[in-house]
Amino acid sequence: MKKLTSLFAAITLFTAVSAQTTDSIQLRKIYDEALINGKSYENLRYLCKNIGPRLSGSANAEKAVDWTKQLMQSYGFDKVFLQEVMVPHWVRGEKEVGKIIANGKSINVALCALGGSVATSATGVTAEVVEVKTLDEVKLLGEAGVKGKIVFYNRPFDPTPIETGISYGTAGDQRRSGPAVAAKYGAVAVIIRSLTHAIDNYPHTGGTQYDSLGVKIPAAALSTVAANQLSQVLKTSKPGSVKFFLKQNCQMLPDIKSYNVVGELTGTEKPNEFITVGGHLDSWDMAEGAHDDGTGVMQSVEVLRIFKSLNYRPRHSVRAVMFMNEENGARGGRKYAELAAENKEKHIAAIESDEGGFTPRGFSFQTSGAIVANANADWKKLLEPYEADKLTVGGGGTDIAPLKRTVPEITLIGFRPDSQRYFDIHHTPNDVFENVNRRELELGGAAMASLVYLIDQHGIRQ
Amino acid sequence: MKKLTSLFAAITLFTAVSAQTTDSIQLRKIYDEALINGKSYENLRYLCKNIGPRLSGSANAEKAVDWTKQLMQSYGFDKVFLQEVMVPHWVRGEKEVGKIIANGKSINVALCALGGSVATSATGVTAEVVEVKTLDEVKLLGEAGVKGKIVFYNRPFDPTPIETGISYGTAGDQRRSGPAVAAKYGAVAVIIRSLTHAIDNYPHTGGTQYDSLGVKIPAAALSTVAANQLSQVLKTSKPGSVKFFLKQNCQMLPDIKSYNVVGELTGTEKPNEFITVGGHLDSWDMAEGAHDDGTGVMQSVEVLRIFKSLNYRPRHSVRAVMFMNEENGARGGRKYAELAAENKEKHIAAIESDEGGFTPRGFSFQTSGAIVANANADWKKLLEPYEADKLTVGGGGTDIAPLKRTVPEITLIGFRPDSQRYFDIHHTPNDVFENVNRRELELGGAAMASLVYLIDQHGIRQ
Repeated sequence: MKKLTSLFAAITLFTAVSAQTTDSIQLRKIYDEALINGKSYENLRYLCKNIGPRLSGSANAEKAVDWTKQLMQSYGFDKVFLQEVMVPHWVRGEKEVGKIIANGKSINVALCALGGSVATSATGVTAEVVEVKTLDEVKLLGEAGVKGKIVFYNRPFDPTPIETGISYGTAGDQRRSGPAVAAKYGAVAVIIRSLTHAIDNYPHTGGTQYDSLGVKIPAAALSTVAANQLSQVLKTSKPGSVKFFLKQNCQMLPDIKSYNVVGELTGTEKPNEFITVGGHLDSWDMAEGAHDDGTGVMQSVEVLRIFKSLNYRPRHSVRAVMFMNEENGARGGRKYAELAAENKEKHIAAIESDEGGFTPRGFSFQTSGAIVANANADWKKLLEPYEADKLTVGGGGTDIAPLKRTVPEITLIGFRPDSQRYFDIHHTPNDVFENVNRRELELGGAAMASLVYLIDQHGIRQ
Repeated sequence: MKKLTSLFAAITLFTAVSAQTTDSIQLRKIYDEALINGKSYENLRYLCKNIGPRLSGSANAEKAVDWTKQLMQSYGFDKVFLQEVMVPHWVRGEKEVGKIIANGKSINVALCALGGSVATSATGVTAEVVEVKTLDEVKLLGEAGVKGKIVFYNRPFDPTPIETGISYGTAGDQRRSGPAVAAKYGAVAVIIRSLTHAIDNYPHTGGTQYDSLGVKIPAAALSTVAANQLSQVLKTSKPGSVKFFLKQNCQMLPDIKSYNVVGELTGTEKPNEFITVGGHLDSWDMAEGAHDDGTGVMQSVEVLRIFKSLNYRPRHSVRAVMFMNEENGARGGRKYAELAAENKEKHIAAIESDEGGFTPRGFSFQTSGAIVANANADWKKLLEPYEADKLTVGGGGTDIAPLKRTVPEITLIGFRPDSQRYFDIHHTPNDVFENVNRRELELGGAAMASLVYLIDQHGIRQ
């Protein structure tokens, strides 16, 4: 018995070692292809420089749909198709104007409307400023303290978390819900401190959600320099004497037709079982949407291009999905999930890259600890030479999240690049191609291709 | 016996867990101090913007000595002192001129003299170009192929290693020894392809070593754009018809007095046992020496500042050392090692930060696997939350290397930040403060302080 057990153990070990060797050779091939012949950087250059900002509903968003479709066709993927989806169509209009009015002076400051915000009247709104740090403070102040005023949310990013996404999460309620809460108590407008660690003069836009039944008031983000300046003026002026002037003429137009763009390498063994890699094609309107999320979509295309170039025919169908409308509606993600259910597709896993094209750290699994423990046991050693081996429990991504509801067996996975620089440029005019590093970007595509390959070969061990 | 063993195990476990808890609390305090009150970024701004380039022997290098001494005194470190050291004094002189002369045209290209190079004659040197990829090719060509010509070393960086330092190492012989080898066979000058992955128009300087007894010929680095251009012209022109014009008037002046700058928190229990953290204060002359190595010196000062600020009194003496002359002589490192032996100091460990102020990955130990295995067993878990837990066998650093000869019991350790962007800017006019990210830099100082703290508490387990 002992001998048999040993023999069995030896065979198992041999098989495991042999699989590891095959896998490690394949991963090295993937990385070599990305680092020697990688195309995501030059593709990103085109998306940023020849197309540019591409907010849902804009002409540029449609150009991006056409171009990415053609790009994937030119690579000869097995299928390239569009998924029609109706998206919101918000436009910023003329450049916003913001002024601090205090002590007989009027100081222009850098700001921008929040995505989805309503306009001010044509002559703007001027009102006394009340500074708060939290939404609860507004509730405590109530109508007596807020009515007729401009609420100024000024809680800074917490500098202490190592992953900057945590600070974004905890500060984010000011932008997402701050205007809706202030409107309830009669505020006439909201200005928020931009969601960033950086102290500079770039305002950061981003979506805000109004209560569907409530009053909608204009909402804008101040640069952190402007927020510090306003706070300082408030501290050193007579209470109640500081006013703010805001003028913006953004508006929400009727919904408009747009598309997700999907490329596919059809599975040789299980064509109706899918592994999705994706990012979002839309971006905010003030910049090129380089890190948010041009990098994610170009890396997703790159995963399939690498496979094709290495002549790797996946067993499952592998899709690169350019989701539309992540920034102000997430309609593309919902549409993809609806169609997956409607078409009775079986989805094994979906990986989203929407945290910037920075140097890879690893992946977070939006699932129980068991899958992550198994992924660490099976794959960590393989990913270690590429410094992409941090496999943790964590978020997947906004675009893939709806899949969990329509195809519950799926495992959602977020690609995790280094997070330090992301919120310096996120949603600002500074999110441009020049701030993307070629090797960091190509390494990300290779890391994603590696994980897709491992899932394709071995499945997700539950 | 079993009970006693269990009891002993329980006590051991309790002690271990309790130490881990104390340590993890202390590391969190270190990171909080760095992320909330960190000073290395603003100190680096001063070093780069108010002092600037600081090649050994320059007036700026002396300013940097004075300023860092004052800075550490202002923090109230227990000791701040200078170590006198004679350093080489090389000056670049007027801006170099390089031209490709082919097909009746003369094209100006971006280049710079290599550090330590001799000048051309006042009218420059013009000669036929012979392109090679390796030093061995020059040896094969011999006098017949090289004499009277300009040798053009054009072997690109290997894109496939994940750590870019590996590519720098394997391409580096072209710069370090290429001119000396070509001189042996009668070449009149050498031009090399800049040592970088990036394809751009920045030339990268860096030291070259002549044979002490051999002929010294002028040597310069072309930007990668210029190198590609020259190579293309050579490919498409009649053999032997392409010439290059080089003019530079750099020179080596007599050695000059300079200093290492040392700050110390004296050990409460073992004042004559030392843990050193350091970087190099000198930089190349073409830029601000931000990542190379302003970040390393400012992080080293920050380690002691953090301890002081947290009121942590180390058991061993902890020193921040600003080494002079790493770039073109490494005399400061040798002097520090000589004095360590002369003063009969016991040195436990030295950590060098000289790979840029990028986001931390971990540390490499220039030692046997046992110490690294123990460091992983004891400390990896503690460093994991800070993403600085990659503890590997690897290099220490140029400045601390001489310590191994004078105090052999020492463990040399290199701080390892992410390596992707370093060689884009290394030794170029683009190595400026603006290319350093505040959080990445401060996280590095915190990682170094954490490791120093752990070594101070637990020693290096052999």
